[in-house]
Amino acid sequence: MEISKLGEFGLIDRLTKDIQLKNNSSLYGVGDDCAVMHYPDTEVLTTSDMLMEGVHFDLTYVSLMQLGYKAAMENISDIFAMNGTPRQMIVSIAIDKRFNVEGMEQFYTGLKKACDKWNIDIVGGDTTSSLTGLAISITCIGDAKKDDIVYRNGAKETDLICVSGDLGAAYMGLQLLEREKTVYYQQLDDINRKISEAKKAGNDALVKHLREQGAKTADFQPDFAGREYLLERQLQPEARGDILQLLRENNIKPTAMMDISDGLSSELLHICKQSQCGCRVYEKNIPIDYQTAVQAEEFNMNVTTCAMNGGEDYELLFTVPIGDHDKLNGLESKGIRQIGYITKPELGTKLISRDNQEFDITAQGWNPLKG
Amino acid sequence: MEISKLGEFGLIDRLTKDIQLKNNSSLYGVGDDCAVMHYPDTEVLTTSDMLMEGVHFDLTYVSLMQLGYKAAMENISDIFAMNGTPRQMIVSIAIDKRFNVEGMEQFYTGLKKACDKWNIDIVGGDTTSSLTGLAISITCIGDAKKDDIVYRNGAKETDLICVSGDLGAAYMGLQLLEREKTVYYQQLDDINRKISEAKKAGNDALVKHLREQGAKTADFQPDFAGREYLLERQLQPEARGDILQLLRENNIKPTAMMDISDGLSSELLHICKQSQCGCRVYEKNIPIDYQTAVQAEEFNMNVTTCAMNGGEDYELLFTVPIGDHDKLNGLESKGIRQIGYITKPELGTKLISRDNQEFDITAQGWNPLKG
Repeated sequence: MEISKLGEFGLIDRLTKDIQLKNNSSLYGVGDDCAVMHYPDTEVLTTSDMLMEGVHFDLTYVSLMQLGYKAAMENISDIFAMNGTPRQMIVSIAIDKRFNVEGMEQFYTGLKKACDKWNIDIVGGDTTSSLTGLAISITCIGDAKKDDIVYRNGAKETDLICVSGDLGAAYMGLQLLEREKTVYYQQLDDINRKISEAKKAGNDALVKHLREQGAKTADFQPDFAGREYLLERQLQPEARGDILQLLRENNIKPTAMMDISDGLSSELLHICKQSQCGCRVYEKNIPIDYQTAVQAEEFNMNVTTCAMNGGEDYELLFTVPIGDHDKLNGLESKGIRQIGYITKPELGTKLISRDNQEFDITAQGWNPLKG
Repeated sequence: MEISKLGEFGLIDRLTKDIQLKNNSSLYGVGDDCAVMHYPDTEVLTTSDMLMEGVHFDLTYVSLMQLGYKAAMENISDIFAMNGTPRQMIVSIAIDKRFNVEGMEQFYTGLKKACDKWNIDIVGGDTTSSLTGLAISITCIGDAKKDDIVYRNGAKETDLICVSGDLGAAYMGLQLLEREKTVYYQQLDDINRKISEAKKAGNDALVKHLREQGAKTADFQPDFAGREYLLERQLQPEARGDILQLLRENNIKPTAMMDISDGLSSELLHICKQSQCGCRVYEKNIPIDYQTAVQAEEFNMNVTTCAMNGGEDYELLFTVPIGDHDKLNGLESKGIRQIGYITKPELGTKLISRDNQEFDITAQGWNPLKG
């Protein structure tokens, strides 16, 4: 159905009609000038992300449902990165004429799936039009008790540096999708060129054969067997609220924390800058999945570079007092890895390679405005 | 300076380095995964708007400073429309390669001017890149005591319908700017066509003369004398927090309220639908500025249609109990006009013309997704 049939308010009604507010803090959702919330006993956390078509996502290999899910998870991840609980979401989208009502419903299905997973209420937003491409802006609101909030600036000398899960897989998933896309379009271009030549030569039989071949190519689904994990990490990332739960159960409170969206290098530098400290991180300790390592080798890329600078992992990077070392030891099997420790600032921010060389950590991660 | 010289974090540092948090509710601003706020005694209000280049604004006649100011005011206006006090703002922008550091500083100067006017803290956001055009998403956070919040759904039969200020001027300002833009480009196109012809004819003297004429045309500033108010209303709208203050001083609490962004007709229908009531609004009572009326006549447009459907006025539309009639009478000179009253729903939503005819009110206002 064309969106113009419904108009702005009709579309909003359709997308939000089945939303039931679940949080006590959500007093009033979609339908007025503002949403209304209630936070008498906790601090309010807010975060906002903007995603632009062609820069942050490519609809040739991301479905609208996956996009909705991922856009929501990216913001949820920022609330977890403060040790908070996500509660509400405000969703603004600008769409051009390519999109129809069904497409927007799919986007909302993805959004709602992510929100339902963490019991979040969609309480408002803006739905408008764009001349060129899809633009998405999400604001997530959460809460935390004042003493529970973890900032980036609390890391202290001797603190242990930890990460959850594994790194670099989302980046390798992106490389894989980009390669398949390139191959796909090259094949279609080739066939179209051959069709033109056959037409010129008046070879109707060849034209027919090539067209059939083209249709098959267009329908072709690449075989990603054995690499499902890489695609899932890229297309359907998960925010690590489960890790916060694990830390609480083990009485561990991080001294500094953030989520890994731009890449481990970039995030380590943020924590060290804001905490006015240095760090030593050991290459051998950086958690990397088997599929990531295999794919990096196939692409002839350095897997540590991918893990340090890839980004979009949405894992948690955090520091804990060295006194919690024993508590942490039991958690390695549950997905928390110690990768190094915090130092005095004058010792710099260092990566120690497998052959015991020291390298300065530099941010080569995702930076949309870097030339 | 090119933005790529600073990168994302360098640009954010530069734009936000002089921000001092002024509200007690603002605990932590720009620089971590989330902003942190504190609202123990009041309800939290949030609103979000997305503005896309070519749809919501045209940089050929809006400066980046004006755009920042207006984008902020539009969101501030939504907090006022709930009878709330704006406190924090989260600003996300996506920019393409046309924009430089100085341009973004101008945009922020406009934003900050609007925020300073209402004592609002910029506490976060996202700064990223776009392939095509500028995209802006602003979330404004405010607060209100629970009993002070005014929704759209509280209007009751016999309530008086009021609006602040005057209507239609922002729309007439837009028409004026659009006309000047059309004339300007027509003149440049004409001259360029004549230059091509003169070149073909080998008439170098004429080419030179036309080029001089073209340069003068390009520099030409249209004369908007006597229409400054219309331009100001379009380019630098003001959110009406002063009207809330006036109502409080006079012990008037609206039963329903919203701001007029899409047009009076559209907003009246929202209030009537959500309050399950009808209305009668009198054409003769709709406040229209002298310049608006003169400009509508020049453009051969019906001024009431402009006032009902123009939009972007950012005035307040609200209903008050009929018992407050006497209190309201004294406020007409201060910019509050009674334009009609609320009826039973079965009486419909009616505009009564100057010659006492009844018309159904229909929403013809701004609707970006209506075909």
